[in-house]
Amino acid sequence: MISESEILKSFNRLIKNNEESSSILVGSGDDAAVISSKSKNLVHSLDISTAGVHFPENSDPTDIAYRSISIALSDLAAMGAYPSFITIGLTSESMDKIWYERFTDGVEKVLKKHDIKLIGGDITKGKLNICVNVFGYLFNKPITRKNAKINDDIYVSGVLGIARQGLIDWNNKKNSEYIDKFFRPEPRFDISKLISKYANSCIDISDGLMCDLKKICNASGVGAVIDFEKIPKINGENDINYGDDYELCFTASPNMRGKIDTKLNFLIGKITKDKEIYLIKNNKKMNFNKKGWDSFD
Amino acid sequence: MISESEILKSFNRLIKNNEESSSILVGSGDDAAVISSKSKNLVHSLDISTAGVHFPENSDPTDIAYRSISIALSDLAAMGAYPSFITIGLTSESMDKIWYERFTDGVEKVLKKHDIKLIGGDITKGKLNICVNVFGYLFNKPITRKNAKINDDIYVSGVLGIARQGLIDWNNKKNSEYIDKFFRPEPRFDISKLISKYANSCIDISDGLMCDLKKICNASGVGAVIDFEKIPKINGENDINYGDDYELCFTASPNMRGKIDTKLNFLIGKITKDKEIYLIKNNKKMNFNKKGWDSFD
Repeated sequence: MISESEILKSFNRLIKNNEESSSILVGSGDDAAVISSKSKNLVHSLDISTAGVHFPENSDPTDIAYRSISIALSDLAAMGAYPSFITIGLTSESMDKIWYERFTDGVEKVLKKHDIKLIGGDITKGKLNICVNVFGYLFNKPITRKNAKINDDIYVSGVLGIARQGLIDWNNKKNSEYIDKFFRPEPRFDISKLISKYANSCIDISDGLMCDLKKICNASGVGAVIDFEKIPKINGENDINYGDDYELCFTASPNMRGKIDTKLNFLIGKITKDKEIYLIKNNKKMNFNKKGWDSFD
Repeated sequence: MISESEILKSFNRLIKNNEESSSILVGSGDDAAVISSKSKNLVHSLDISTAGVHFPENSDPTDIAYRSISIALSDLAAMGAYPSFITIGLTSESMDKIWYERFTDGVEKVLKKHDIKLIGGDITKGKLNICVNVFGYLFNKPITRKNAKINDDIYVSGVLGIARQGLIDWNNKKNSEYIDKFFRPEPRFDISKLISKYANSCIDISDGLMCDLKKICNASGVGAVIDFEKIPKINGENDINYGDDYELCFTASPNMRGKIDTKLNFLIGKITKDKEIYLIKNNKKMNFNKKGWDSFD
């Protein structure tokens, strides 16, 4: 039988690194960790990932860790923030030491990628569940969902549908360059930093472009018209209704066109006064009312 | 079918309260919350509670929330810290709106009790799992596990065995004043504040006095001799081997005897150079080597 303390050892390596850091005054091996905090506004989000809902049951533990943390970090990017530290609450039934080592490898990869710290964690036995809390600081101002203005341009930061295709390919055991986009999504901190001064509103595309844009529109009390042809996508309409790409969807005043890099971002539509969301496809205007992904459906 | 957004509404009430607070700049209805942070050291801990392991499957949702948060907060008390804000990652299979309302009631009760804020949360579908992150600030210095000194007095902050008896009574459907100690444990911030200047080391008794004292001894490279008769307890030896009371066990120099209130705290033994832990009972010295509770056993 593998014990909790043995499992925690596999995390120790990551927590040890912290002790070299002047910002961690007491490491998380004690009752609590003590962190030297900056007097800046702290930005926080949390995301739970569960097997069978957020990733396939038999996913690689390295991928599970990488994906769970990355999608939580993506919420910081969507807020115009960069990450600083995270915590992980891991529930797992595995009794296999290798499983925890591979999971820890995934955690370490993300920590290194973003130069962030794991300040605390807990492991308990039960159905696989990863609860990731992420903390960071603003690049400039918070880019909320509720500040989209009538006549704003609507942008997306990358090609949609890749993650979905990657999952399909993985399920079909097909070797495909798209698979990593599903299992190792990259939060768009690069874009977030570039647009943080200029964007009026922003969201990350986790549930699907149309569904997530609807959240911006609802929060801002506006509508939108989207040009189907202008949306960067690999397949067709499914790409805008399914999520998992973790690209950013943001709005900015047309006055900012010189500031938003259109080599990196795609201008796909306009914010409207009319509170409906319309999709223009083949010169036809369609009303969007499809519900997005919701883990309780 | 109840949707995620409907469920989140039951939390909205708690998050709305935050908007009246000058310390929450953006509430958690957006991608992330923005919190005005103090330039003090931040103290963090996290605890996961799962059904069947940390509380009975059919517990009252109000109790589940209250207990899950309280035991996480207890780690702050054990570190000599007071709480300021928390986050909750809730995984639940319930489709019953009342269940979420009752859970939210429990959250609210703890928030009010300690005058703290819920700064963020996520809800997803799956086997019941509550991941609670707690944040606070130090009363004085951190009271770690690793600073117990040879010849320190060892104290406990209250009577042991009550929570265990409460759970037994609850399982036997017996009306008992002990039940609340199991389902609604109170982190000892009162004691933590009083001893935070004087104690050398501290831990909260979650896994059992002997087991948790052992953690202090291991971390500090010392041993202990405990007088069985002096341990406040309601039954017998089981009370010192089982946990769940969330009283504090701490050590302090004998020079501090005038500072430690012995009406509130019980002096039960001494820290020794010899790295073993001994229990003196009926004039016999017994070596403690029983393993404590471990959720992976």
